[in-house]
Amino acid sequence: MNTAAIHHQPESEFAYLYTLDKMHIRLKTGREDVKHVSLINGDPYQLDHHEWFNQTIPMEKYLSTTTHDYWIVETSALHRRLSYAFKIEGMDGSILFYGDHGFFPYQEATLKTANNYFKLPYFHEADRFKAPQWVKETIWYQIFPERFANGDLNNDPQGTLPWDSSVSPSRDDFFGGDLQGVLDHLDHFVDLGINGLYFCPIFQASSNHKYDTIDYFEIDSAFGNKKLFKTLVEECHKRGIRVMLDAVFNHMGDFSPQWQDVIKNGEDSPYAQWFHIHKFPVTYTPTADFEFSDDITYDTFAFTPHMPKLNTANKDVQDYLLKIARYWIEEFDIDAWRLDVANEVDHRFWRKFHDVCTEAKEDIYILGEIWHSSQRWLQGDEFHAVMNYAFTDAILSYFVYQTISLSKLVSELNHQLMLYREQTNQIMFNVLDSHDTPRLLTIAQHNKDLMKQVMAFTYLQKGVPCLYYGDEYAMDGGADPDCRKCMVWEPEQQDQEMYSFVKHLIAFRKEHQTLLSEGKLRWLEVDEQTGTIDFAYEYEGTRLRSIFNTGEQPVYVKKADILFYNRTQRLDQDTIELAPFGFASSLEIIERTDKNGTHQNKRSLVAGNSGLSGLSS
Amino acid sequence: MNTAAIHHQPESEFAYLYTLDKMHIRLKTGREDVKHVSLINGDPYQLDHHEWFNQTIPMEKYLSTTTHDYWIVETSALHRRLSYAFKIEGMDGSILFYGDHGFFPYQEATLKTANNYFKLPYFHEADRFKAPQWVKETIWYQIFPERFANGDLNNDPQGTLPWDSSVSPSRDDFFGGDLQGVLDHLDHFVDLGINGLYFCPIFQASSNHKYDTIDYFEIDSAFGNKKLFKTLVEECHKRGIRVMLDAVFNHMGDFSPQWQDVIKNGEDSPYAQWFHIHKFPVTYTPTADFEFSDDITYDTFAFTPHMPKLNTANKDVQDYLLKIARYWIEEFDIDAWRLDVANEVDHRFWRKFHDVCTEAKEDIYILGEIWHSSQRWLQGDEFHAVMNYAFTDAILSYFVYQTISLSKLVSELNHQLMLYREQTNQIMFNVLDSHDTPRLLTIAQHNKDLMKQVMAFTYLQKGVPCLYYGDEYAMDGGADPDCRKCMVWEPEQQDQEMYSFVKHLIAFRKEHQTLLSEGKLRWLEVDEQTGTIDFAYEYEGTRLRSIFNTGEQPVYVKKADILFYNRTQRLDQDTIELAPFGFASSLEIIERTDKNGTHQNKRSLVAGNSGLSGLSS
Repeated sequence: MNTAAIHHQPESEFAYLYTLDKMHIRLKTGREDVKHVSLINGDPYQLDHHEWFNQTIPMEKYLSTTTHDYWIVETSALHRRLSYAFKIEGMDGSILFYGDHGFFPYQEATLKTANNYFKLPYFHEADRFKAPQWVKETIWYQIFPERFANGDLNNDPQGTLPWDSSVSPSRDDFFGGDLQGVLDHLDHFVDLGINGLYFCPIFQASSNHKYDTIDYFEIDSAFGNKKLFKTLVEECHKRGIRVMLDAVFNHMGDFSPQWQDVIKNGEDSPYAQWFHIHKFPVTYTPTADFEFSDDITYDTFAFTPHMPKLNTANKDVQDYLLKIARYWIEEFDIDAWRLDVANEVDHRFWRKFHDVCTEAKEDIYILGEIWHSSQRWLQGDEFHAVMNYAFTDAILSYFVYQTISLSKLVSELNHQLMLYREQTNQIMFNVLDSHDTPRLLTIAQHNKDLMKQVMAFTYLQKGVPCLYYGDEYAMDGGADPDCRKCMVWEPEQQDQEMYSFVKHLIAFRKEHQTLLSEGKLRWLEVDEQTGTIDFAYEYEGTRLRSIFNTGEQPVYVKKADILFYNRTQRLDQDTIELAPFGFASSLEIIERTDKNGTHQNKRSLVAGNSGLSGLSS
Repeated sequence: MNTAAIHHQPESEFAYLYTLDKMHIRLKTGREDVKHVSLINGDPYQLDHHEWFNQTIPMEKYLSTTTHDYWIVETSALHRRLSYAFKIEGMDGSILFYGDHGFFPYQEATLKTANNYFKLPYFHEADRFKAPQWVKETIWYQIFPERFANGDLNNDPQGTLPWDSSVSPSRDDFFGGDLQGVLDHLDHFVDLGINGLYFCPIFQASSNHKYDTIDYFEIDSAFGNKKLFKTLVEECHKRGIRVMLDAVFNHMGDFSPQWQDVIKNGEDSPYAQWFHIHKFPVTYTPTADFEFSDDITYDTFAFTPHMPKLNTANKDVQDYLLKIARYWIEEFDIDAWRLDVANEVDHRFWRKFHDVCTEAKEDIYILGEIWHSSQRWLQGDEFHAVMNYAFTDAILSYFVYQTISLSKLVSELNHQLMLYREQTNQIMFNVLDSHDTPRLLTIAQHNKDLMKQVMAFTYLQKGVPCLYYGDEYAMDGGADPDCRKCMVWEPEQQDQEMYSFVKHLIAFRKEHQTLLSEGKLRWLEVDEQTGTIDFAYEYEGTRLRSIFNTGEQPVYVKKADILFYNRTQRLDQDTIELAPFGFASSLEIIERTDKNGTHQNKRSLVAGNSGLSGLSS
């Protein structure tokens, strides 16, 4: 047995409270190296009396990566505390005990030694990761306010260009988009099925993207004012639409009064300690690149002198930022905060932020912008989720860029799902494109069927999807700033067919959200050669099953009823053809499992599927 | 290469800030599976411009367990942020890139992809684990106050028995030990070299052990009063001795006014929410065992109805306990808190506790009682250390109980050291016995040489040792309550030879503390067959080297000067004989290393050592 590959860690994503009284336990073993795993568990103080180690619970082999198999089990405890360990049976027939001090022979002396067990000392609800339920049910829509709609010509900044969705914007252009424009189009969201709006920054700032905040307590005057924003939130809420704002707390804009005071007064500024300043006066040598200097005397975001980094360990800064966090929740009833460059701010600050926000609104959603593995931020006391680039990158790498294999795709998705608690996975923020990346249609080289396939695949994953404004009309655009074109409101330029697809996709996702959120993911068939992906979510006797054809030849599926699909053709009553870029989803009643726990007919649905190899049993 | 065995996790003990600007990075690989590891690292925002991935830093193969090798390196970053990954060369000659998305071929396309790297997004001093320096220099002495010394006959509880160190106490006996007794013997500590006193609970309680607190704001009247305690702390401080108190915050005693109020007023009690009560009125059925009932209607410590568990998520309870934490620091200037049953209290509470305590006294030492792996509590925001039973258990299991092999001992010690950050390891609390366990001499079956060998080995490990009262006079005692005999003050019953040994051991440890704390551990020779353990700590050109003979035959050592030893005999100018149970320590200048990084003469010091196999290179 490859014991070096076996891993478990208490009080992490490997062992955590899922609900008030249900604990989830995971174990990682070498891929295809282990035959069975059982959980040995009981009350820490009853080991001697009850000898509970004589009974074990079988664990389920769940998801696999290229290197590991993950085993899972749900358990509970009458007295809300648990000692546990694993009985591991290798493919080679060897059986080992694995616990807090590693591996031991599976024998009574081992089992009777209290210190050999892992512990979950007490089920503390205070420490449990608690996900806001409404997020699971949400389809987000990202608005870049300067480019969504110009509803009020009176607040347009000087030099505002005429609205034109075909124009590729320059970095410093203004087109007059504002909050009134959003308010004017609430029907659009309702019709599309959107129930969450994510706004890029709307606070007073100098740039068009507003990530260089000047005043966190003011709406940018080119966007509107507080009264208008309040109305907007209220009108959204009337329609069941939640509102998320973007908080840029890692740094400030250099036009902020605080930084201007530092420039002016140097060390004597009351804000001198608000930043990370290495030498006074604060200086830098400008270069040809507005966003770059290599001799800045203070810490900044990246190397841009215009975004001095805030010292979030400073009490005054904390008070200031926490007041902002509370203000927009309490006064305007916003539902979520999206945190810009969240990974570069300290954990201690985010924990305070979490407490302030959840105190102000119990079911607030806190979303961090982090591009890499984020376990440390997702323990339940900082963020609820992160922008799930790691997850969607894998999807794009396979479907669009074709830089990874199908098995690597499945491995990477499974890996990401095993990095976090199940309740975290359910509300991770899945984005395919944004104001920071090229648009999906563009990277798909204008292949709309591919775009639809990628969107469908993503919307059928754990986590909540976010639609970038305009994608519903098949807008294109390369890297920033090209991805920030004006929203296409000219009807003749709107792709109504794509709109209809997206609308149906959203409706389908919402209808089956419970299955997706709560269900167990099953990779039924993953065929590298034909490009067939057959996967399902199982929950309470029902299964939402989807088959994607990512290959170059048609795939034939034995299926009577399909509910949501693209590029399919019925050949006869039982057979459907999936053309390349095609997919089809259906609902099934889960057949009885045989005593080995495998589904009797699970390998029979894709016709002519020789050579299929699943990455999950 | 066994890729499934390879593990790294950012923002954990695998990657952390050691000092303000030094980062420690570790990697785990399968044992003897990997030839070289290098760190690739640079600024996240300069990957494209600087192509820093073209330069790598070799990592050092440090400690090994039975399953893994650990590689370490120290690095820093000009802009206080880091992208990093590993170049791993297997024994099989294969070379891989390992980063945030797993394994890739080691090629330019991999190296140029920013998302492939692990991140330390910013070096936040606020998040760094900060260890109080003084703890490294401390030798602790544990006092069970009821049994250390009776300095004041006037406060003896009714039925106090005459002081007699030969009497095996019953569970409910009182012998009159008190704080005046401790004050009277400060010279004892000074003479012995003790510079930290760890007191078992001294607050008002009904039992002799005082773990069933009645009033956290009062000194137990049988022990003294606040004025006396204040004097005691002052007198300790005058002598350079720190003071640690025991806080029992997991539960209260059932005689506490709060619990009594709950008994009396049930749901209407203002303290009804202070506990975890499942049903009112609070009841249980007593059994023959005073500490057990199986139908308690409230949560307790273990199954004892007399210790109702506190609800530390309740704001009033938090305020109450935090006030206590602050009170004894601010009013009495205590230096450390030892937290009873610390693992069963929630993390959120401990973080608040940490903040309150460090605010009251910046270099406070917070020590948790946790018997199992404790990474989650040792991130820098809860405890500074835990009672290191896992570490000392391994020592006892090998030296005393002989239930594990020598290689398992070394593996387990290495494993424990790799569970925590280096600054944590330096102040872990290493106990060989306590009021909860049989005494060392007793489990050593009264073999005093073995006792000395075990103590010397433990005092020469990372972490700080704690001496249990009376061990310096070779007191014996089985499991609780037998290990709580009255301190032996009768000179004719004191083992002066053991006292002298312990005194020298303490002096030796203190003299070489820097080497032990800051030095790198080297297992030079670990010989299962002869029982020879040859290990050293290397720091700034000097090496503290110790050889232990745990076998049944003499071991011969080529050594001119030894500084601290037992059961040794000089045979000639260059050779020393170590009898069974013997050991010898010496200081050496580190010889030049050859270009492979190995020490040229490291295998030559133990004479006739064929078959030796080290667990560390």
